[in-house]
Amino acid sequence: MTFDRELRFGDCDPSGIAYFPAYLNILNGVVEEFWAVIGFPWPGLIVVRRIGVPTVHLTCDFSRPSMFGDLLTFDLRVCRIGRASLHLTHVVSGPDGMRWRARQIVAATSLATHHAIPWPEDIRDALLAHLHADEGAQVTPA
Amino acid sequence: MTFDRELRFGDCDPSGIAYFPAYLNILNGVVEEFWAVIGFPWPGLIVVRRIGVPTVHLTCDFSRPSMFGDLLTFDLRVCRIGRASLHLTHVVSGPDGMRWRARQIVAATSLATHHAIPWPEDIRDALLAHLHADEGAQVTPA
Amino acid sequence: MTFDRELRFGDCDPSGIAYFPAYLNILNGVVEEFWAVIGFPWPGLIVVRRIGVPTVHLTCDFSRPSMFGDLLTFDLRVCRIGRASLHLTHVVSGPDGMRWRARQIVAATSLATHHAIPWPEDIRDALLAHLHADEGAQVTPA
Amino acid sequence: MTFDRELRFGDCDPSGIAYFPAYLNILNGVVEEFWAVIGFPWPGLIVVRRIGVPTVHLTCDFSRPSMFGDLLTFDLRVCRIGRASLHLTHVVSGPDGMRWRARQIVAATSLATHHAIPWPEDIRDALLAHLHADEGAQVTPA
Repeated sequence: MTFDRELRFGDCDPSGIAYFPAYLNILNGVVEEFWAVIGFPWPGLIVVRRIGVPTVHLTCDFSRPSMFGDLLTFDLRVCRIGRASLHLTHVVSGPDGMRWRARQIVAATSLATHHAIPWPEDIRDALLAHLHADEGAQVTPA
Repeated sequence: MTFDRELRFGDCDPSGIAYFPAYLNILNGVVEEFWAVIGFPWPGLIVVRRIGVPTVHLTCDFSRPSMFGDLLTFDLRVCRIGRASLHLTHVVSGPDGMRWRARQIVAATSLATHHAIPWPEDIRDALLAHLHADEGAQVTPA
Repeated sequence: MTFDRELRFGDCDPSGIAYFPAYLNILNGVVEEFWAVIGFPWPGLIVVRRIGVPTVHLTCDFSRPSMFGDLLTFDLRVCRIGRASLHLTHVVSGPDGMRWRARQIVAATSLATHHAIPWPEDIRDALLAHLHADEGAQVTPA
Repeated sequence: MTFDRELRFGDCDPSGIAYFPAYLNILNGVVEEFWAVIGFPWPGLIVVRRIGVPTVHLTCDFSRPSMFGDLLTFDLRVCRIGRASLHLTHVVSGPDGMRWRARQIVAATSLATHHAIPWPEDIRDALLAHLHADEGAQVTPA
């Protein structure tokens, strides 16, 4: 699943290139859009069902800088579904190839207790339908 | 070396806890202050000497949520100095213990070319003086 | 000229509604897109020609709150072109009507000196072509 | 009442000066600190009492640019207390004088309904104790 984003002036820093916290703000918006695409827009998930999906782990490698005005493609893959976790990989590319990539783990969380909860069945089914079909994909039985 | 920060309302999200890109914005400010403390404030480094220190790698583990008004202590350690790189570890704690931690690698970079350059000798000396003295600390000969 | 934007989770605060500094970050991106549409994308303007367009005045009225997931339309009008200034009005609406509006004045600025400069003729012509045709529109002779 | 802030690298943009939405993020943090100083820290106000203080009007004049590393002083004055509103004026200065100023109106709001509510008496009393004593200060009877 891919998402296009244009890097904005306000996402860049005085050295002229993308400010990495701004990159992660954009990434979070991409993940938000992913949830809407698979049928679980965050207003319903977070406000109505009171389920959060906070990031518990993040690894990023920034290979080449980007500057404002650059058109970037965010490639998102579901690579593992745990009982209460979701592993995503992100590859962010410009016209000339990869700029950075990330691995992210989010955890299903009750917003009442801020503790992890198992994925509800409907959400788990939607995530399974988008599990990336390669040798590394993994699923923990519910 | 430790730095105190208060988590602000604007750093938190609608689920009521710290928004992780905002956390990383705060972390970047802590690193900026570290450079000032060791004698190389960024305006001189970046604007005058045209040396940038972009983040090339970042790993974060978020253990427990924080909310606005929380007083956080950022503990920063220099754990490895490479020819053109600097490895930092960060532990962020509230009154009740660790909230999150990170490993970060930054690279000395010419802002003229956006390519890595060896640390200038004066900067390397300042970093060496703050290398954390434990079994894991490593230095690559200049 | 209108621009559609979806309000993101990361643009909202713990009270559940849009955080006004995030709103202004989005507004700045809309203005950046306006400059690209009229033929002067900011990388060329700022990096190549070394002309900045900083905001010197801003007035905002926030009428009704927005929340993440809301689809907003930003309506931008050029209402006055001064010798070195540009007056814009913004009306931001949701499906149910206006959420907020703003008046913004930006100034053509040399990035070498950070002083105001008259609009170069090609930029002034492009702005004139988009001057909103109503009784309030004003132009200062170059 | 004054608050010191250092402008950070991440608050500045590729033209090298403060990014105005970042300025307003800092301003919001100053206002948050003001509420703590007068005895109503936001966690208690917003989370416990469910009273928000969203900005309903903002006027800013940016006179001179600031760059990262600049030490800024935020001077905040309570200049008018309405039935459900609070008018603040802000003057932000560097060592060489004023950089920008703002007038801000916030409204007491029920977070249950997102509608304006009269200031509760204890809050109103605290605000009154900090009303700036000059000819322009105004109070609307409760």
